[in-house]
Amino acid sequence: MRNLRLLIAYDGTDFHGWQRQPNAPTIQGLLEESIAKIVREPVTLQGSGRTDAGVHATGQVGNLLTSCRIPCRNLLKALNDALPPTVRIRRVDEVAEDFHARYSARSKTYRYRIYQRDVCPPFLCRFVNHHPEPLDSATMAQAASLLEGEHDFTSFAATEREEDQHSLRLGSNIRRIDRSRVLTHPRLHLIVYEVESSGFLRHMARNIVGTLLQVGCGKLSPQDAVRILGARDRSLAGPTAPAQGLCLMKVVYD
Amino acid sequence: MRNLRLLIAYDGTDFHGWQRQPNAPTIQGLLEESIAKIVREPVTLQGSGRTDAGVHATGQVGNLLTSCRIPCRNLLKALNDALPPTVRIRRVDEVAEDFHARYSARSKTYRYRIYQRDVCPPFLCRFVNHHPEPLDSATMAQAASLLEGEHDFTSFAATEREEDQHSLRLGSNIRRIDRSRVLTHPRLHLIVYEVESSGFLRHMARNIVGTLLQVGCGKLSPQDAVRILGARDRSLAGPTAPAQGLCLMKVVYD
Repeated sequence: MRNLRLLIAYDGTDFHGWQRQPNAPTIQGLLEESIAKIVREPVTLQGSGRTDAGVHATGQVGNLLTSCRIPCRNLLKALNDALPPTVRIRRVDEVAEDFHARYSARSKTYRYRIYQRDVCPPFLCRFVNHHPEPLDSATMAQAASLLEGEHDFTSFAATEREEDQHSLRLGSNIRRIDRSRVLTHPRLHLIVYEVESSGFLRHMARNIVGTLLQVGCGKLSPQDAVRILGARDRSLAGPTAPAQGLCLMKVVYD
Repeated sequence: MRNLRLLIAYDGTDFHGWQRQPNAPTIQGLLEESIAKIVREPVTLQGSGRTDAGVHATGQVGNLLTSCRIPCRNLLKALNDALPPTVRIRRVDEVAEDFHARYSARSKTYRYRIYQRDVCPPFLCRFVNHHPEPLDSATMAQAASLLEGEHDFTSFAATEREEDQHSLRLGSNIRRIDRSRVLTHPRLHLIVYEVESSGFLRHMARNIVGTLLQVGCGKLSPQDAVRILGARDRSLAGPTAPAQGLCLMKVVYD
């Protein structure tokens, strides 16, 4: 059996997230079907992690085991010919048999884009959170940096009620954030939140952004964000920010 | 009556072009309906010109006459609240009664984007022509610049058969191109054709691009483009390039 690693980009707008579902279009479902037709055997595509409905990716990684002998280059071409233009395979590589897209991952980086002008260009509307009210990006940046390090992120995790029934609930909500930064692109009218972590809890990136937005509009201070983190109480943090601003940029492996 | 000028941006992917049609979604149709609901009277929105199905705009201009007294600023807000995010009103201004979006226009600028890498990012796929085969942008630029000036553009105009039955066929195909340039953005893997003219014939920009693509891949020389222009014969020029790469950028008025 060969172990194939796929580097995947998608516009998540028209999908019900990554994870295969019986009666809804998903990225994993579409890819598994398309790959199965080409390699002529059923496949399971393991992703580095799930992305929620409406979340995008430029650097999602998946792997699959197959007995098919088609060269990687040809698989890449055949697969992109079969897929809609909103889902693209950027690379196919044969990797060691012990590579696992989820368990071998060392860190993941997400980006969240906030568009600040009154009118959001039609070319951006699928890929940003349009937030025309003014935001103080400096205090947002301060709050963001205070979340770096190893913490219990219960305050920023989906509650049991928000979790879907299929999801595995791990015991601990302790995670390490290696990078949590707010960048501004004044010429593009964008505020970008970039977060890298060894592991994300469900909705964690979007719940952090929801809280940073409250800091940006003055409802919370950067110190409030630290207090909320320490309280381990989801009800204190901001609401979950809309999915469409979020994009999985990169998964790092050893 | 007030004469209102609208600056309009749209993602043309899901529309059958600008011009109102009885049984298909169009930009003009959608805007007229949305405006009529707000100003509570039927309106006719005159565009600077029609864009074909799938063509985008960042700087389309339209004007309409209305007895409605709602301030421009409020109209802008109400209209954007009513429209889908793929169609945006960037400005509303009250203008002199003799302003006419079409007849007062001095020039229009279109941009055509060609994406050159093997795999087209999902975030660009609606807005570029994906052309992974290598192109010689230098000879394309040469050919493009040779089209500047006043010429009979019959070779680059839609044939009678391609024209739809509603379009007005003007007597002369003589137009003046003020700027016809090919720019490269190597970091973005884009070749961009920019063309400014006092008036475009139907399909003219896309037929020029179809011919420039043949120059870029070596099928035609820049001198062939001049010869084709002189022949006034549509059958000699390249095919009509796909609509999705084209965007109306700007309309200039006195």
